[in-house]
Amino acid sequence: MQEPDPLLAGGQGACRSHLVLRVDAQRGTQREADLLAEETAVALEYNGISHATLLASPCDLEDLAYGFSYTEGIIRGPHDMRDVELVERGNGLVLQMQIASACLDQLKRRRRSLAGRSGCGLCGIESLDEVRRDLPPLAPRGTRVAASAVVTAVAELRGMQALHAATGATHAAGWADAAGKIMLVREDVGRHNALDKLIGHLLRNAVETADGIAVVSSRASFEMVEKSAAAGISVLAAVSAATSYATRTAEELNVMLAGFTRGRQFTVYSHPEYLNREGDPSR
Amino acid sequence: MQEPDPLLAGGQGACRSHLVLRVDAQRGTQREADLLAEETAVALEYNGISHATLLASPCDLEDLAYGFSYTEGIIRGPHDMRDVELVERGNGLVLQMQIASACLDQLKRRRRSLAGRSGCGLCGIESLDEVRRDLPPLAPRGTRVAASAVVTAVAELRGMQALHAATGATHAAGWADAAGKIMLVREDVGRHNALDKLIGHLLRNAVETADGIAVVSSRASFEMVEKSAAAGISVLAAVSAATSYATRTAEELNVMLAGFTRGRQFTVYSHPEYLNREGDPSR
Repeated sequence: MQEPDPLLAGGQGACRSHLVLRVDAQRGTQREADLLAEETAVALEYNGISHATLLASPCDLEDLAYGFSYTEGIIRGPHDMRDVELVERGNGLVLQMQIASACLDQLKRRRRSLAGRSGCGLCGIESLDEVRRDLPPLAPRGTRVAASAVVTAVAELRGMQALHAATGATHAAGWADAAGKIMLVREDVGRHNALDKLIGHLLRNAVETADGIAVVSSRASFEMVEKSAAAGISVLAAVSAATSYATRTAEELNVMLAGFTRGRQFTVYSHPEYLNREGDPSR
Repeated sequence: MQEPDPLLAGGQGACRSHLVLRVDAQRGTQREADLLAEETAVALEYNGISHATLLASPCDLEDLAYGFSYTEGIIRGPHDMRDVELVERGNGLVLQMQIASACLDQLKRRRRSLAGRSGCGLCGIESLDEVRRDLPPLAPRGTRVAASAVVTAVAELRGMQALHAATGATHAAGWADAAGKIMLVREDVGRHNALDKLIGHLLRNAVETADGIAVVSSRASFEMVEKSAAAGISVLAAVSAATSYATRTAEELNVMLAGFTRGRQFTVYSHPEYLNREGDPSR
């Protein structure tokens, strides 16, 4: 499958030039070319059956295919994904996936519970009972995470958002090692898609997630916590604040949720015992 | 229907106190109480039938009921909404709406096209053909909008986000008059919900939308442009950038889309002819 690379100069494929009017309320206006993030309808098909359509940045779509299918509980691992083809239509893209037939039952169950439209991160589960997935909590994290690692990971991510630097309209998810060094970045107009792309790449490459940190450039929603837990990620750090529902979910699923990261300061919303506080003067 | 008021001190109802750990990577940690934005599952029922569930801030829910139903094309106007009741369940809230029976056919058609889950603002329309709604373009705007009005509206909105000031985790939508003075603000953990709440209030109060400006604290998505156009709003100003799809949609629906507002500067992505450029030295 050929995909445009968002990290190429100018974010080819994932952004597009458009003539805009720059306005200064005092000095006047100027016509100039601007780079806008592409937002493409991407239809997901499993074994020939339409499942859902997302609006996404048209890059790293194979990662999105794996990540979405895995964090939504449709495939049990990368071995369940038999083939991914990207087909271009006039009004968008289609990800045609072939999955193991054992996954189709699970897909049908999920399908009944999917309905809705609105950018709330959940949008459209039909009844309240279906909101939370039946995810088991992660095993308690074996290693502590250093405060400096969280700070480093968030700071590094900011400098590695190539598509955001070009367009100002995308979110990013990054994967950092235990020291906070960012190993991988994925970007998308949708914050949940960016995280799914990141997880998809980790999954395809069998990256061990036990000791790392996932970082997101956005706020932390309830669903982002669920996706992290589904991928075995026990530390999720957000640039902005977390909601109370995200926090409760993180408590229950044994995820340390950090957020509101400003310079060397951040807030831990859940499982502060995962933080390495050796040498902490206030301990 | 009783709703908590998000503009009350501390954002009662829409936020919740939670004990967090404040971390400074050099100075150490401190336990303290923080205010987190509530993120509540809100199920929407029409005439007793489940339609969808959103994650939303539990405030101004009657506005959300009207706004969502109208911008999704389920009701044709406020007269089609016969009753709204808010029912509390253990795991969320239910908005029980009674709508005119003439709207039920439309609802059934929409329902077939709703499926999905993921915070992309569209999430889950099943096939590519269903992505764009069949909205007629607005009539070209009769009055020009002053650059100073856009700048004023965005600046005023920033100072009126009470829930965001308390929690850091919510978006806002504001309605400004032709001079940019903000007349109404609605907040929500979801940017699309904030806009739906704003539109719902305008609709319930028969506010004339021809000469005003809608302002959103977030980026501008394709769906926010559609919602604005559905409500007769011809100028939408976003704090952050717009995507290319939002821009194309705004061009087609005769909406002036502005964004990337920084101080007295902003970018116009579509329909710059709506801008009043009298006295513009660069004109």
